[in-house]
Amino acid sequence: MKGTSKICITGATGFIGKNLVKSLQTLRPLSVTVITRSKEQSEKNLGLFTEVYIDDGDTEHLINFFIERQFDTVIHLASLYLKDHESTQIDDLITSNLLFGTRLLEASVKGSVKYFVNTGTLWQHYEDKLYSPVNLYAATKQAFEVIAQYYKETSDIFFTTIYLNDTYGPGDTRRKILNIWNAMGERDRLEMSPGEQIINLLHIDDVVDGYIKLIELLQSGELSKDASSAFVLKAKEEMTLRQLAETFERIAGKRLNINWGGYSYKAREVMTVWNKGVTVPGWAPKVSLDDGLKQFVLLART
Amino acid sequence: MKGTSKICITGATGFIGKNLVKSLQTLRPLSVTVITRSKEQSEKNLGLFTEVYIDDGDTEHLINFFIERQFDTVIHLASLYLKDHESTQIDDLITSNLLFGTRLLEASVKGSVKYFVNTGTLWQHYEDKLYSPVNLYAATKQAFEVIAQYYKETSDIFFTTIYLNDTYGPGDTRRKILNIWNAMGERDRLEMSPGEQIINLLHIDDVVDGYIKLIELLQSGELSKDASSAFVLKAKEEMTLRQLAETFERIAGKRLNINWGGYSYKAREVMTVWNKGVTVPGWAPKVSLDDGLKQFVLLART
Repeated sequence: MKGTSKICITGATGFIGKNLVKSLQTLRPLSVTVITRSKEQSEKNLGLFTEVYIDDGDTEHLINFFIERQFDTVIHLASLYLKDHESTQIDDLITSNLLFGTRLLEASVKGSVKYFVNTGTLWQHYEDKLYSPVNLYAATKQAFEVIAQYYKETSDIFFTTIYLNDTYGPGDTRRKILNIWNAMGERDRLEMSPGEQIINLLHIDDVVDGYIKLIELLQSGELSKDASSAFVLKAKEEMTLRQLAETFERIAGKRLNINWGGYSYKAREVMTVWNKGVTVPGWAPKVSLDDGLKQFVLLART
Repeated sequence: MKGTSKICITGATGFIGKNLVKSLQTLRPLSVTVITRSKEQSEKNLGLFTEVYIDDGDTEHLINFFIERQFDTVIHLASLYLKDHESTQIDDLITSNLLFGTRLLEASVKGSVKYFVNTGTLWQHYEDKLYSPVNLYAATKQAFEVIAQYYKETSDIFFTTIYLNDTYGPGDTRRKILNIWNAMGERDRLEMSPGEQIINLLHIDDVVDGYIKLIELLQSGELSKDASSAFVLKAKEEMTLRQLAETFERIAGKRLNINWGGYSYKAREVMTVWNKGVTVPGWAPKVSLDDGLKQFVLLART
């Protein structure tokens, strides 16, 4: 990454954002600015950080700020994730995943941002289809790319998307299966589906590496706009959920009392991991699942 | 159309909506309900009408209403059209064209609606591409179809889209070229582009026929979900804007003092009309441009 780079990042208080921001600090770009919608959250988690812009929802304010700062790169991680949405959450979902992103793109184009790194999900590709959303969340992610197409075609911005699947690592407080297993005592019993879903877990260090590698490729001009501008970051190792449980048991040194098949698969259970898509050139995951799980289990105990 | 049909329509105060509602009245479905976001507008234009639901923005209210009414068909015409958007209009554009539509789909699915007829624009296909938006408005239209894909795949709703190009007819008060020409006096002079754009103008009677034909095909089960579920309505006659001006002069019996090339084409001027896409089976336009223009000119004088 160029030392003269001015980076703007959204979603910096989330699991990936927090870790990416930490890594960016060690790379010492000229500046890193965090766009956030909640003052409280940003102060709690980003106290050390260079600059925080609190978005008040006014697009002209955002544009003026972008024109003033002249960022070269925007990393868009902010997102409302809902596995299953309630009807009352549609407003939040559209506002967070479509309206905010569109305002951000408008400000980026008006502020002459060169590179825009968006974040998508492999759940836009249910059953390996080119587009089939697992849930409404994934549909809003795809819809945002459709909106972005307008800005790509009418400006010089280089818009790219990184598709992620499952990610994990220390400090991940999201209600995910590793945290649930980790918290289980000897007498706890967990009802689960039959567990034949293929799982692909990417360690947070590899996720962060992937973003930084892509930014470097963009800034060095090594990526051409005509080539793919969507990239997948996923782990090499894949296994079923049951096999993951066995691996976890081995590494954590405890038995998980799981009733496999205690409930059925959901209507749109994701059984496989999208195997199409291009990885970020020059990037490969470095953290093995064994090492990643060891670290995860160890840190969870301290 | 089945006499037992319960129809729900949005955008009923617009040019197409007004005319479609008038036609539906003569077909006497069991009921026609208009969903509107402004009480004043609906009272002014739909005084005669069966039922008006004022949307207060609360999705649960909308769902409860849909569950109560059990509509079989929803015709979604409501849309915020902006040829070029201002940054400050992004909120309105996303709220009108994405949030409202998503809430409507959610209510439709929860209320067991069978058929959902959406409205798109040929401007989603700039330069004949599968998807290339002329403007942000067209991008929001495409993004809505992407959102709809989720509802199509996770429910029994039959979602279809009718793509429209330019439409015209008596009572059209939109600021469109025919109205501008119509209002020109002998001494007025109009600066225009070189005028080689291909124009395809569909008369409002044909538009309305197309919607009704599609609803009939849906309700009779003649359309299969596996076949195309997107249809184009456009006129047979096409000509350049200059030729249209000549035709208008002949029919209106007046000279238009136009300075062709007085300004240049815009950056994304639409020069051709998308020639792909399937028309509504069994539908063909009936009103010739000559007849349509005669009626337009005549009614504008009275």
